Amino acid sequence: MNSDTTIAILGGTGPQGQGLAIRFAIAGISVALGSREGDRAAAIAEELNRKLEGRSAVPVRGYDNLAAIDAAERFVLLAVPYSGHDATLGVVKGHLAGKVLVDLVVPLAAGNPRAVAMPKEGSATEAAQALLGREVKVVGALHNVSAHTLNALEENINCDILACGDDVEATDAVVELIKRLGVESYNCGPAVHARCIEALTPLLIRLNMSKKVPFSHAGIRIWRPGRPGV
Amino acid sequence: MNSDTTIAILGGTGPQGQGLAIRFAIAGISVALGSREGDRAAAIAEELNRKLEGRSAVPVRGYDNLAAIDAAERFVLLAVPYSGHDATLGVVKGHLAGKVLVDLVVPLAAGNPRAVAMPKEGSATEAAQALLGREVKVVGALHNVSAHTLNALEENINCDILACGDDVEATDAVVELIKRLGVESYNCGPAVHARCIEALTPLLIRLNMSKKVPFSHAGIRIWRPGRPGV
Repeated sequence: MNSDTTIAILGGTGPQGQGLAIRFAIAGISVALGSREGDRAAAIAEELNRKLEGRSAVPVRGYDNLAAIDAAERFVLLAVPYSGHDATLGVVKGHLAGKVLVDLVVPLAAGNPRAVAMPKEGSATEAAQALLGREVKVVGALHNVSAHTLNALEENINCDILACGDDVEATDAVVELIKRLGVESYNCGPAVHARCIEALTPLLIRLNMSKKVPFSHAGIRIWRPGRPGV
Repeated sequence: MNSDTTIAILGGTGPQGQGLAIRFAIAGISVALGSREGDRAAAIAEELNRKLEGRSAVPVRGYDNLAAIDAAERFVLLAVPYSGHDATLGVVKGHLAGKVLVDLVVPLAAGNPRAVAMPKEGSATEAAQALLGREVKVVGALHNVSAHTLNALEENINCDILACGDDVEATDAVVELIKRLGVESYNCGPAVHARCIEALTPLLIRLNMSKKVPFSHAGIRIWRPGRPGV
């Protein structure tokens, strides 16, 4: 399969980054998987390519984070744990000018995945925008889809993806990129809405962990009259 | 139909309060509709009872807000506009001891229903708990269901209801009350989660108003594997 674009996934060797890499590869998008250590990213990329054998997919390639950014045309996804959010951005900031940083990070409270501990800016997305300055357009998205769901290739991704960012065009472009994964995705407005969207994740984790709630792998969907299959 | 319980809806003469009153009446729950002016509440209650003619429903009765609270066994729903949130609670505070205050209010930004302007406590639910003190248990719920949906009796309520509050037992009890409307409802944890749940409303309003999004009357659903009809 030929790819029409290359995206980077920083922190791409974690379960969420790997799941996204596989899903984008199957969607025909070339993924530059980034890690602090390029060798580790290259090894994980080869593992993912073995998982993709027999499918029509674009090969995943591994790089260190800076080289992954340089390989990406426009979209750079940030999939590190919250503890590495600001530090990673600080390291890569100089390489991001002109790119769109898609921030997936949820500020889960330390030791408690059922709660958020938002940064003083209000959300990780807003903190990233403040840290990177206006030359980089930050879009928050893909917070609420679990690594489990992404890696369960036998099933479709059965939740909607809510995106937000202060640049309308960049946010719309991220929504279109995400739709290529076969999901519904919406531009939910300015970055301030990330305070809500990021906080949905611990709410879902809480439901998944609850003994009273008879399910796991919960996701969010936007219901509307006449939605097929809903 | 005989009712097994009576609930109060303060600010019940607005579109959301009316819609909830009708839905609870059909579910067999007696509603004491409250307003600052008891005569107005009584007149609206009679209008609602005319709408309910031909259905098996408990009659709705209208009172001033304080009398409505006194008529309620346990649950007092607050459905005033945000501009009247704190003032209404200040007036009725002395009558609420031992009750559960179900706060439906979304702190929409003045003049902009596509954004929230959260109070310093973090959310309306948390502000209500701070204002009322610990003798009153506050549960945030029913923020995301539109007045349109509630009043469209020919259709089921097709969104889920997310509830949160610092008292687990009270929150679970509100969830059970809400389930009687034929919806799925979840205890989403402590009151701090109201910062997310309340903020979902302007996000939905934004989608409903968007020219790019091909629907209106959006709601939130918790998706999980195997959910019937989802």
